[in-house]
Amino acid sequence: MRVKMIVAYDGTNYKGWQVQPNGITIEEVLNKNLSNLLGEQIVVSGASRTDSGVHSLGNIAVFDTNTRMPADKIAFALNQRLPEDIVVQGSCEVEDGWHPRYQNSRKTYEYRILNRTFRMPTRRLDTYFYHYPLDVEKMKKAASYLEGEHDFKSFCAIGAQVKTTVRTIYACDVEKEGDIITIRVTGNGFLYNMVRIIAGTLVQVGGGAIKPEAVKGILAKKDRSAAGPTAPAHGLTMMGIEFENVE
Amino acid sequence: MRVKMIVAYDGTNYKGWQVQPNGITIEEVLNKNLSNLLGEQIVVSGASRTDSGVHSLGNIAVFDTNTRMPADKIAFALNQRLPEDIVVQGSCEVEDGWHPRYQNSRKTYEYRILNRTFRMPTRRLDTYFYHYPLDVEKMKKAASYLEGEHDFKSFCAIGAQVKTTVRTIYACDVEKEGDIITIRVTGNGFLYNMVRIIAGTLVQVGGGAIKPEAVKGILAKKDRSAAGPTAPAHGLTMMGIEFENVE
Repeated sequence: MRVKMIVAYDGTNYKGWQVQPNGITIEEVLNKNLSNLLGEQIVVSGASRTDSGVHSLGNIAVFDTNTRMPADKIAFALNQRLPEDIVVQGSCEVEDGWHPRYQNSRKTYEYRILNRTFRMPTRRLDTYFYHYPLDVEKMKKAASYLEGEHDFKSFCAIGAQVKTTVRTIYACDVEKEGDIITIRVTGNGFLYNMVRIIAGTLVQVGGGAIKPEAVKGILAKKDRSAAGPTAPAHGLTMMGIEFENVE
Repeated sequence: MRVKMIVAYDGTNYKGWQVQPNGITIEEVLNKNLSNLLGEQIVVSGASRTDSGVHSLGNIAVFDTNTRMPADKIAFALNQRLPEDIVVQGSCEVEDGWHPRYQNSRKTYEYRILNRTFRMPTRRLDTYFYHYPLDVEKMKKAASYLEGEHDFKSFCAIGAQVKTTVRTIYACDVEKEGDIITIRVTGNGFLYNMVRIIAGTLVQVGGGAIKPEAVKGILAKKDRSAAGPTAPAHGLTMMGIEFENVE
């Protein structure tokens, strides 16, 4: 059968999702522990191949297995074996061949900025510390221009190989609670580094270096150098993915 | 001059505040780095000697120094030297001999419980994971009986040496936001493990093992064994201390 799992992790101690030679990855830890649990070679495939340091509350992994363990029990059994910074949030059976990357979906990411004079040690791993005051109203306005279907080439890392840089952002909201500013973006797909470049650009808007209205021109230029810098990975969390048809 | 500092820390990697032989402590790290910064032997004294694993956003430390560095600049200079899990949030001069433990004050602690089916890796270090559903309304009601001046002997770790176990709790609120239940307690002082025993008791109330009204009887018994267990240290954060007269 094919199994779908929701995977949460603190990305601090991992070199991202995808197996690679320079360090331990989320995918690798899941493969190893699932293989040990189920007694067969398991290879997971992920919906979002998050970068080193990026966190997740709702990434999706799928894999095929011959086990007779009920699909919904796999999450509980696997969590007994996983390190404490990776926790599966549920598992279920899906149709053979179903894959999260080949489905219409709505992905949501949050980028969190800690905006205050002093760093806060308890939030150092999941927020980007930014010392200068940010104007949240300006950030909200700038974010609104990103909503809708646009060519996001200006918000894509240089060198990324994609057929098209057109994506739809269903919502891009900016909220402040205490000292933490959260940029929440939901879209039908994201280009490489897209949310981090959006965050880096909105920080420049909040600080006054870019006018909110200028975001329209940044989109129109279709040029990475028109947008702001790529904000650091550790402020980013993959929140979840909704699919049109899954079970 | 005497200097007062506000000290925030992630307590995960420390054996608590107070210098002790079995591991590194917050006090020790502050003493070492202040001594190096100011070129003289510095010994800090803390308001709240938090236990191993307890966090802080607003603990207070005082020390005497002959430095000519302005008191308010010490925080910035010290933060350059401190590890990233300890961050001073400000420093100022206070009267000679002023000490946070010998002042009337209002201390606030928060105890956070993550109440959901699966652990959440990004909040594993600052919340106590509790799997069974908790009834927040019952917890709120139970908490209300703790407010006011009471003998909190039932909520004090056995063997603690204190003149009196009478304390005043100005407010004990329970709030739920998403999956996180926060118990916020403000009082004129706290006995050893008092907030963690309150949290352990309120968890039993939320789970149905203790009726909210029973808290009155637990107080009246003046017996540690009448209250619930001591909740784990890592759910506790020292939020801040207000003084009647400081600068």
